Amino acid sequence: MGTVRLLSDEEASAEALAVFDEIRAARGTDYVNNFWRALAHDPGLLRATWDRLRAVMAPGALDPLVKELIYIAVSTANGCEYCVHSHTAAARAKGMTAEMHAELLAVIGMAAQTNALVTGLQTPVDDMFKADQAP
Amino acid sequence: MGTVRLLSDEEASAEALAVFDEIRAARGTDYVNNFWRALAHDPGLLRATWDRLRAVMAPGALDPLVKELIYIAVSTANGCEYCVHSHTAAARAKGMTAEMHAELLAVIGMAAQTNALVTGLQTPVDDMFKADQAP
Amino acid sequence: MGTVRLLSDEEASAEALAVFDEIRAARGTDYVNNFWRALAHDPGLLRATWDRLRAVMAPGALDPLVKELIYIAVSTANGCEYCVHSHTAAARAKGMTAEMHAELLAVIGMAAQTNALVTGLQTPVDDMFKADQAP
Amino acid sequence: MGTVRLLSDEEASAEALAVFDEIRAARGTDYVNNFWRALAHDPGLLRATWDRLRAVMAPGALDPLVKELIYIAVSTANGCEYCVHSHTAAARAKGMTAEMHAELLAVIGMAAQTNALVTGLQTPVDDMFKADQAP
Amino acid sequence: MGTVRLLSDEEASAEALAVFDEIRAARGTDYVNNFWRALAHDPGLLRATWDRLRAVMAPGALDPLVKELIYIAVSTANGCEYCVHSHTAAARAKGMTAEMHAELLAVIGMAAQTNALVTGLQTPVDDMFKADQAP
Amino acid sequence: MGTVRLLSDEEASAEALAVFDEIRAARGTDYVNNFWRALAHDPGLLRATWDRLRAVMAPGALDPLVKELIYIAVSTANGCEYCVHSHTAAARAKGMTAEMHAELLAVIGMAAQTNALVTGLQTPVDDMFKADQAP
Repeated sequence: MGTVRLLSDEEASAEALAVFDEIRAARGTDYVNNFWRALAHDPGLLRATWDRLRAVMAPGALDPLVKELIYIAVSTANGCEYCVHSHTAAARAKGMTAEMHAELLAVIGMAAQTNALVTGLQTPVDDMFKADQAP
Repeated sequence: MGTVRLLSDEEASAEALAVFDEIRAARGTDYVNNFWRALAHDPGLLRATWDRLRAVMAPGALDPLVKELIYIAVSTANGCEYCVHSHTAAARAKGMTAEMHAELLAVIGMAAQTNALVTGLQTPVDDMFKADQAP
Repeated sequence: MGTVRLLSDEEASAEALAVFDEIRAARGTDYVNNFWRALAHDPGLLRATWDRLRAVMAPGALDPLVKELIYIAVSTANGCEYCVHSHTAAARAKGMTAEMHAELLAVIGMAAQTNALVTGLQTPVDDMFKADQAP
Repeated sequence: MGTVRLLSDEEASAEALAVFDEIRAARGTDYVNNFWRALAHDPGLLRATWDRLRAVMAPGALDPLVKELIYIAVSTANGCEYCVHSHTAAARAKGMTAEMHAELLAVIGMAAQTNALVTGLQTPVDDMFKADQAP
Repeated sequence: MGTVRLLSDEEASAEALAVFDEIRAARGTDYVNNFWRALAHDPGLLRATWDRLRAVMAPGALDPLVKELIYIAVSTANGCEYCVHSHTAAARAKGMTAEMHAELLAVIGMAAQTNALVTGLQTPVDDMFKADQAP
Repeated sequence: MGTVRLLSDEEASAEALAVFDEIRAARGTDYVNNFWRALAHDPGLLRATWDRLRAVMAPGALDPLVKELIYIAVSTANGCEYCVHSHTAAARAKGMTAEMHAELLAVIGMAAQTNALVTGLQTPVDDMFKADQAP
């Protein structure tokens, strides 16, 4: 139902299949979700997206679950149905509880509301918030 | 420079001043930032927004710093200049390091990119991501 | 400061000047605001935009002030600083009171919040809301 | 099909059921739409959202139908399918005619178009539109 | 399933049917797609939209295929499912190859990413990018 | 004025400076624009963004000017002031004429308008537009 067909393993190029295999190994499942099967029409884009996603979502100063919560927040604000579903599932797999999910949604809703209020008010930014005010 | 003037303490109603005082007490500073001074034209909206913000951002299953990161993520996706500035400052006040900020931005950028790719591809949602597939 | 310079009356083409004159006559002021001076680089687009705007914003089943409120709502949701400013000014000129402005902002904020909650929840649309359910 | 299951009356907590009952009473129908059944996983968020929605949408300086039109405008600009459907149904229930709906859509489309033009042109805001220019 | 029913030829007004006939003639097919059948509830809006679309998408300084790619880019950024589908189909009809589609998606994704990074960083615009810096 | 300070050559790390040098060489100018100086706080993100941008914007099935037009379209729809300015300047440097700019803006405005109309109408996607309908 997309703008491109989803490629099966048989249809994917060798370069795309190599990425599919890395996805399977990283996640410990044989299932490759639809996003990657759609991206497989462009093996270079598939490779770049997968490599960058792995690097960005790896543990660092922020832990992987927090990164998933941020991903859900952006996806929700951008209205991306697929992304909200896939990253909500990913966050659950990384330990998001029902209570955490509820608080995440409350913060997202609150931010959307005050974003809209500020935009309607066109409030000027306080000088103290700007980086060049730092000592 | 907004669509309404910022109200000084002298111009604010008693109901609005009461909220200003709670903001000062909660933050341990005499400074009341511009958003609240703009909202003060409607003391009822000011009160409802402040009360709800405090409840939503309080410690819970997610800690306040994580909530601020989520707030920045939504504000960035919504393109709210004021909100990005004010919540980046708030996150720093709650302990966000430069490294955490950099990772936050990398996740926001990654999410924005895959949101756009998925939307351009119109990838159908995998059944396994849907809540009613849960056992 | 835009991506194109604002054209003065002296710089505008005859076709653009004709639109400027209609704007002046319709508004009873000599002032032509910046949007039209930027659009004047493409007299055809200027003409089409002005003509369509006049038709769409004319009194009809909805009165012009209600149409301005809707315009502000869309401009706020789209994060268009210029448009929020210009249509807030226009709404005031058409009779928007401070109380109406405050209620408008409250509705915009509420809608933004529930839009975000619904998107995060991915709530399926109730059958009864769909037009083809109508008797 | 959402990211959380819809809760039936039997599954909802007592606190959530109390909100369901208020919804039924306020609308004169036994039907509780999906948004509230999804929100019911977090009774506190359900309660806060319902209470605030009732306050914001109540008659005031703007009448309830105008508020629904504004709600549709924001929901459309934010691309929220569920919200467009539910608030279009609500507006009809409050008296929106086919002619009013058509004019609403024309204004929403016009605003979206000029929002985009202004953003592409990056037109600077006229001084006269700013609140601090007021006498 | 929309907020209005799709009108058949039998249900459309004479004014709407005249537009349907122009669409058929312009495209060399008897099929009139759903967007126009939904718009037909407001023959004036249908006429204005069709006339303007034809003028805007006609060959000019940019060729029609490039215009379709731009249309897809905007529709993707705005998250409009219908529009992404219909303009991807239109672009293919005008000669968009799979390779061009893949590059289009890569640019859209890249732009979405750097848009988000810039917004999170709130980078000030370089003076040299502004039109009034031009000699 | 951003959320991070812009780093001068003296403040940038060796890894960041290496990217600055590549930017200078690629563009034949000593000037490094603000976006890169802000990103330089995270040399890894700076490197990944620059490398990917170069790959995506290189000549391919689409020529670099068309890619810049698409970039402007996405940036406009996302409301990114900095990006609209920088990519409009880049497009001019690659040959965008005033006439092409005007047509680009007209298409962006038209797309934004019909995106909004479709979303308000919630028009279902025609089967013939879906990829799996292909023979």
